[in-house]
Amino acid sequence: MAGSSYGNSFTITTWGESHGPAIGAVIDGCPAGLPLTAEDIQKFLDRRKPGQSRFSTARREDDQAEILSGVFEGKTTGTPISVIVHNQDQRSRDYGRIKDCYRPGHADYTFDAKYGIRDYRGGGRTSGRETIGRVAAGAVAAKLLQRLGIHVTAYTKAIGGITVPESAYDYECIGDNPLYMPNNEYAAKASAYLENCVKNQDSSGGMIECIIDGMPAGVGEPVFDKLDARLAKAVMSIGAVKGVEIGGGFETARMTGSVNNDEFCMENGYIRKKSNHSGGTLGGLSDGSRIVLRAAVKPTPSIAREQKTVDVHGEETSITITGRHDPVIVPRAVVVVESMAAITAADLLLANMGAKMEYLEKIYRR
Amino acid sequence: MAGSSYGNSFTITTWGESHGPAIGAVIDGCPAGLPLTAEDIQKFLDRRKPGQSRFSTARREDDQAEILSGVFEGKTTGTPISVIVHNQDQRSRDYGRIKDCYRPGHADYTFDAKYGIRDYRGGGRTSGRETIGRVAAGAVAAKLLQRLGIHVTAYTKAIGGITVPESAYDYECIGDNPLYMPNNEYAAKASAYLENCVKNQDSSGGMIECIIDGMPAGVGEPVFDKLDARLAKAVMSIGAVKGVEIGGGFETARMTGSVNNDEFCMENGYIRKKSNHSGGTLGGLSDGSRIVLRAAVKPTPSIAREQKTVDVHGEETSITITGRHDPVIVPRAVVVVESMAAITAADLLLANMGAKMEYLEKIYRR
Amino acid sequence: MAGSSYGNSFTITTWGESHGPAIGAVIDGCPAGLPLTAEDIQKFLDRRKPGQSRFSTARREDDQAEILSGVFEGKTTGTPISVIVHNQDQRSRDYGRIKDCYRPGHADYTFDAKYGIRDYRGGGRTSGRETIGRVAAGAVAAKLLQRLGIHVTAYTKAIGGITVPESAYDYECIGDNPLYMPNNEYAAKASAYLENCVKNQDSSGGMIECIIDGMPAGVGEPVFDKLDARLAKAVMSIGAVKGVEIGGGFETARMTGSVNNDEFCMENGYIRKKSNHSGGTLGGLSDGSRIVLRAAVKPTPSIAREQKTVDVHGEETSITITGRHDPVIVPRAVVVVESMAAITAADLLLANMGAKMEYLEKIYRR
Amino acid sequence: MAGSSYGNSFTITTWGESHGPAIGAVIDGCPAGLPLTAEDIQKFLDRRKPGQSRFSTARREDDQAEILSGVFEGKTTGTPISVIVHNQDQRSRDYGRIKDCYRPGHADYTFDAKYGIRDYRGGGRTSGRETIGRVAAGAVAAKLLQRLGIHVTAYTKAIGGITVPESAYDYECIGDNPLYMPNNEYAAKASAYLENCVKNQDSSGGMIECIIDGMPAGVGEPVFDKLDARLAKAVMSIGAVKGVEIGGGFETARMTGSVNNDEFCMENGYIRKKSNHSGGTLGGLSDGSRIVLRAAVKPTPSIAREQKTVDVHGEETSITITGRHDPVIVPRAVVVVESMAAITAADLLLANMGAKMEYLEKIYRR
Repeated sequence: MAGSSYGNSFTITTWGESHGPAIGAVIDGCPAGLPLTAEDIQKFLDRRKPGQSRFSTARREDDQAEILSGVFEGKTTGTPISVIVHNQDQRSRDYGRIKDCYRPGHADYTFDAKYGIRDYRGGGRTSGRETIGRVAAGAVAAKLLQRLGIHVTAYTKAIGGITVPESAYDYECIGDNPLYMPNNEYAAKASAYLENCVKNQDSSGGMIECIIDGMPAGVGEPVFDKLDARLAKAVMSIGAVKGVEIGGGFETARMTGSVNNDEFCMENGYIRKKSNHSGGTLGGLSDGSRIVLRAAVKPTPSIAREQKTVDVHGEETSITITGRHDPVIVPRAVVVVESMAAITAADLLLANMGAKMEYLEKIYRR
Repeated sequence: MAGSSYGNSFTITTWGESHGPAIGAVIDGCPAGLPLTAEDIQKFLDRRKPGQSRFSTARREDDQAEILSGVFEGKTTGTPISVIVHNQDQRSRDYGRIKDCYRPGHADYTFDAKYGIRDYRGGGRTSGRETIGRVAAGAVAAKLLQRLGIHVTAYTKAIGGITVPESAYDYECIGDNPLYMPNNEYAAKASAYLENCVKNQDSSGGMIECIIDGMPAGVGEPVFDKLDARLAKAVMSIGAVKGVEIGGGFETARMTGSVNNDEFCMENGYIRKKSNHSGGTLGGLSDGSRIVLRAAVKPTPSIAREQKTVDVHGEETSITITGRHDPVIVPRAVVVVESMAAITAADLLLANMGAKMEYLEKIYRR
Repeated sequence: MAGSSYGNSFTITTWGESHGPAIGAVIDGCPAGLPLTAEDIQKFLDRRKPGQSRFSTARREDDQAEILSGVFEGKTTGTPISVIVHNQDQRSRDYGRIKDCYRPGHADYTFDAKYGIRDYRGGGRTSGRETIGRVAAGAVAAKLLQRLGIHVTAYTKAIGGITVPESAYDYECIGDNPLYMPNNEYAAKASAYLENCVKNQDSSGGMIECIIDGMPAGVGEPVFDKLDARLAKAVMSIGAVKGVEIGGGFETARMTGSVNNDEFCMENGYIRKKSNHSGGTLGGLSDGSRIVLRAAVKPTPSIAREQKTVDVHGEETSITITGRHDPVIVPRAVVVVESMAAITAADLLLANMGAKMEYLEKIYRR
Repeated sequence: MAGSSYGNSFTITTWGESHGPAIGAVIDGCPAGLPLTAEDIQKFLDRRKPGQSRFSTARREDDQAEILSGVFEGKTTGTPISVIVHNQDQRSRDYGRIKDCYRPGHADYTFDAKYGIRDYRGGGRTSGRETIGRVAAGAVAAKLLQRLGIHVTAYTKAIGGITVPESAYDYECIGDNPLYMPNNEYAAKASAYLENCVKNQDSSGGMIECIIDGMPAGVGEPVFDKLDARLAKAVMSIGAVKGVEIGGGFETARMTGSVNNDEFCMENGYIRKKSNHSGGTLGGLSDGSRIVLRAAVKPTPSIAREQKTVDVHGEETSITITGRHDPVIVPRAVVVVESMAAITAADLLLANMGAKMEYLEKIYRR
C-alpha cells in the first residue's frame, strides 16, 4: 500500500494539497447503520480551524465539509464515505523563495530528493492542511466509538516548559481556552510564554495527551499490530510529532518493576488495576483501564527570523519566511491526535471481531 | 492482515510460542541475489541469547537457526525465506500459579480477555522468545542494507537513572560490556545498580538508542507511512517498549523553533544540515543525516517479591514469581530494536523504488 | 483492507453512488514525473459513455473528469491523484418498485442481506457508474505503461453467439463500430442480433478480449499474486463478468500437453515461444509474449419483460423494469476491462522492482 | 505484500521448495477456540498425495504434517498456526538438462527472467509441492467453516473431452474413484483416455468444479473484493489453472437475460432463487444459494516426448523429460481448489463481521 491509506478494516485514504482545488478523505469499511451527517464532521473540522486565538494564523480557512457518498437517509450504508473540503485560498501569488529554497525544518528538500518534483505552493501535500482528511475520518470513527460507549479526548499537556500536572487537570475547561489546556491558569501562563515567542520571532513546541475511556479489554493484535504500536504509528505520522509514549512512557525507563507493575484487584465483580502505569495496554492489548498516550510536538519550523539554508541549485543562501504562522502547532493538532487515536481504536475493534469462534457463532450460526 | 506480519514489500511473518516445538519467521519479498547463510542469522540470534552476563537468565536457550527455504547455493532466490529455531526447553513442569493467576505487568489477563484461551507455558506467544523471529528477519534485512552502504546500530543508552551522555559515547566498546553500553564506565555503574535491584527482589527499566547511517535522502512515504511513523510502530511493537522518540524527541516540546530548526549547508557538493535535531527525517522522509531513535523500556515485570493480583476465577490473591528472570530487559532487546529498524528501512527502500518514473525507466526501458 | 481499494503499489480507491453528488477515485503510488492531464482521463471516460450507439442507453451521462490533486504543472508529483466526476442526473424521482422489490439478477437483495440498508436510487454503489473510478485510474495506468512501451487493448470478442474468430481480427477497426468489435462485418451481424433482443424485450451476454503487448518477461509474483491470478481478480471484480480465462483458457482442459506446450525458440537474439497457448504467462509470471485474457459477460439483468420476484417484506410479487437499459453490457465494459488490466500491470511492474539486488544497486548504490 | 501471503483477516503465508528440507504454511488470524489436530490437516494432505492411482506419480511423498504453534490443548489459541511438512526426497541427483534448459510449459524461463537465479531442483518453488501449504491451510479453514454449517466440496468435472454432465452427478462416489469424479462410469472412461495419453507420451487437461453450501447471504465485499473476484484469484493462483468461471460462466456470454436471470421466490419463509445461473453470487456478494465455480486445468507440461526449446545460454536445443509424471494434474489439484475456496470463504466471513453496527453492538455493547 502506498502511504496515503491507514487502517486495515476501518480504512482511510486521504488526498489533496494545500493550494489545489480541494482536499479530502475516503473512509472505507465503516459499518452500515451509523447515523452520520456533515455536521458531525464539521464539528471536528472546526476544532482545527485557525483564527480561533491570537496564536493561530489569521489566514481564513473556512473549511466546509461535504459528504459525497456512503451516507443515505442519514445513515452510513457500508460503502465508502467520501468527504471533500474545497480550498478557499488558491489565488495565484508569489511563492518566490519557497519555490527555490529549502526551508529549515520543512520537507521541501526531502520531497525534492524523493520525487524530483514538488508542489511548493503553501507546502503542497506537506502542508498542515493534509490533516483535514484525518480529522474528517476521525469524526466518523469517534461517532462509531460513541455508539459502543468508547470516548476519545485529547488536550494540550504542555507548551514549551509550561506543563499541566495531572493533579491540576480539569477536563471541563479544555474547550474554555484557545490552547485546549485542561486548566485555565496554566493556559494563561502558556499564552504569556507564546506572546514572548512571537515577540522574539520564534516559536514553541509542546505536548498533547490523549485518553481513551471505555475500551473493552483484549483489543489490539499481538506482536506487530499491538494497540500501542498502532497508536504510536498513527500519532507519529502527524507532521511535527517527534515522540510518542504510552502510560508511564519514558519515565518507566527510570522506574523499578515493583513501582511500575500495576497490581490487579476486583471492583464490583470486574477485574481492575490499582494503578495505571501501563497506560491501558498489557502485551499490546487493551487491559480495560483508561488508555493514555502523549505526543511531543516540535516547534513550528516557520519562524520570522532569517535562517541560513541552501537553494535548489545547491547554493548556500538565507531565507526569511514571511506571512503569519502559528507560533505553536499544538492547539490545532489536538483534534488531529484525537482523530488518529479514534481511527486506530475503530480499526482494531473491527479486527478484534474475529478473535474467537464464539463471536463468529454469535453472528453466523443459525 | 492479522497482526503477525510486518512490512509491505519486505514482509516478515513470525510464529511460535515459548514452549512449543519451535519458533520461527518467514521473510517474503527479499530481493534475489543476496548472499545469505545460517551463520549470518546466528550472529544476530546470539546477541539476544541469555546467559551472557549475570544480569540475564541462567536458562539455557541454545537457539540454533536453520534456513528451510529461499536460499540456493548461498544466495537468496526471491522466494520466501523460512527460518526455524527449535525450542530446547519444552519439558513438562508445574506452571501452577501462572496458569491460574494474572501476573501484574504481563499479558496473561489481556490474552484471556481477547481469546478466552491462553497457552500459559512460559508466557506462550507473549514470551520474550517471540522476538527470535524478528531478530532472524532483522539479520537478513541488515545484510541487504549493508550491500547498499546502510548500517544500523543499537545500544543501551540508559539503565534506570544511569544515562550515557552523547559526549561520552565510544561506539567501539558497545560489544565489550554485557549491557551493550557505548561506555564501559557507565556500564560498570549500571551493573552496580542492577546488582542492587536483584538484591531488592526488584528490576529496572532503561533506554535503547538506535542509529541508521548511510540512508539516502527521500526514503519513507508521506502521510501515514512516514519513516518515523513506521519506526515508531516497529519499535513500539516490541514487548516492554513504552515510548519512542526521533531526534530531539520529547525535548523538542520544550524547545523553540530557532533552536530546533536544523539549518541547511553545502558540504563537498552535498546538501547537509548543520545540526540534527530532526533525527534524520523531515516530513517523514529521510533527510540524508543519521537517523536517531530512542525507545523507553519498562522494568522486567517478573520480580521475586510477592505481588497482589486476581486469579482466573475473579478472586483476589497474591503471587510470587519463582525462577530466574533478567532484572532488566534492555541488553537483550538491543538487537531486537536494531532488527526492527533494519526491517523497516529495507521495507521502505523497496517501496521507494516506485517514487519516480526515472527509476522505472532505468529498470524497464529497453 | 475494505474492498474499495485495489493494488498494493499502484493503489486505487474508488467511491460514489449512482445518484449521489459525485463519483471518483484516488490513485496512490503513481510515480512522480508522469505527464498527465484531465484530457488523458477524459478520453478513457468517453469510451464508456452511453449514447454512442442505439444499443446504449439514451440517459445523458456527460461525465467530466476533474483532477483535484497529485498533479502539478502537468506532471504527477507522487502524491495521491484524486479524480472526481460530478453526477448530472440526481433529480428526485419515483424509484417505486426498485425501492421495495429485489430485481432478479441484481444485487438489491444481497446488499440488503449484508448491510441492512441500501441506497436504491439507480442501483447506488452497484450501478454501472461505479466503474467510472476504475476507468479514470485505468487512464493513468495506461499512460504510465505507454512510457515503458507497454500497450493494453480490449475489444468485443463475442455478442451472444456471434464470435469474431482470431483469423478475422482487424484491430484497426475496433473504434469504427459502436460495439468495439475487431471486425465490422461481425459487428453488423451482432447489431442485427441485438435489435432482435430489444424487440423481444430481452438482452444479450458477450465476451471481451484484452491483450497486453510489450510486457517484459518475469513480471508477476509467484504463488498467490501471479500475474494471471491478479488479472482474474481484477476482471472478475467488474459487475456482470462471470468467467475469466488466460491464453488457451477453458480450451486447454480438452487439450493434450504436446499440443498445449509452447516450445521455446530464439528470435533475433531473444527467447521467444513458437505458439502462445500460455497467453503470455508461465508459472504466473509474464513470459515476454503477448498477454491474452478473455472475460465472459452476462446479459444485462434489466429487461423489460415482467419477472417474478419477492419484495423486501418477503412477499412474492412481480416486477417490470421501466426506463431504457442497454441490451448488452459488453461494449461499455470494454474500456473497464482494459483499465483493470492496465492497473494490474502497473501495480505488478512496481512490485517487480524489488525482485533482485541488481535493481536496488542500480538505484541506490553510490 | 509480497506474493506468498493470501487473505486479509484469515491470512496464510506459504514457503518452501520442492527439494529443500521442508515446506510449510503459517495461518494467521484463525479465531481462537477452534478444535484442531494434526490429523485434521493430514486428512487433507493425504488427498493430494501421489501414488493413489496409476495416473499419479510413483514418487513417494509421504507427507506428514506437524503443527508447530497456535494450538494448545487441542484448540486454536488465536496466534499463528505454523504447519511444517518435511521433504522426504532430497537426495542429490543429476538434474542435468533441467538445470540448463527451459522446459516448455514450465516456469524455468520466467523465474530466471525475474530473479536471475533459480532453484532448479525439482522445480523449486514452482513445483506442485508448493500447494502443500495451501492444503494445510485449507484444512484449517474447512474446519472453521464446518462449525458454521458451511461445506466446501470439489471434484473432477472433466478430463480431456470426458465431461460429467450435472444430470449424472453422484456426490457420494467422488471418493470412490482415483480421479475424484462424481460418477464412476465417467471415471472409467476417463481412465481409459488417460491410459491412451500415457501410451502416446502425452498428457491431458481437465476441469474441476467446486461448490460451497450453507454460505449465508451477503458475504463478500463490493467492488474489488467481490466473493467471485476473490475466488477467481484464489483458484487462478494455482499453477496450471488457465480459467475460472462462476455459475453459468462462459455460457452466459451466449445467453439472453430472460434465461439467465434467476427469479426470486419464497421457500419456508426464506428468500430463494428458482434457478442458480448466478452460481450463488449477485453483485459479488453471496446470495444464499449454492456457490458454484469451475476451473480449467491445462495438461501436465512434463511429457516424455522430445520437445524443442532453448538453454540458459540462448542456444536452441531439445529436451526429453525423464522420470514419471502424472499424465493429468486434475485429480491431485481437486483438494487444492477446495482449499483455496475454503480459505477465501473463511477470510470473507471474517471481513463481513464489520458490515453493520448491529454486529458490533452484539459483541461490544455492555
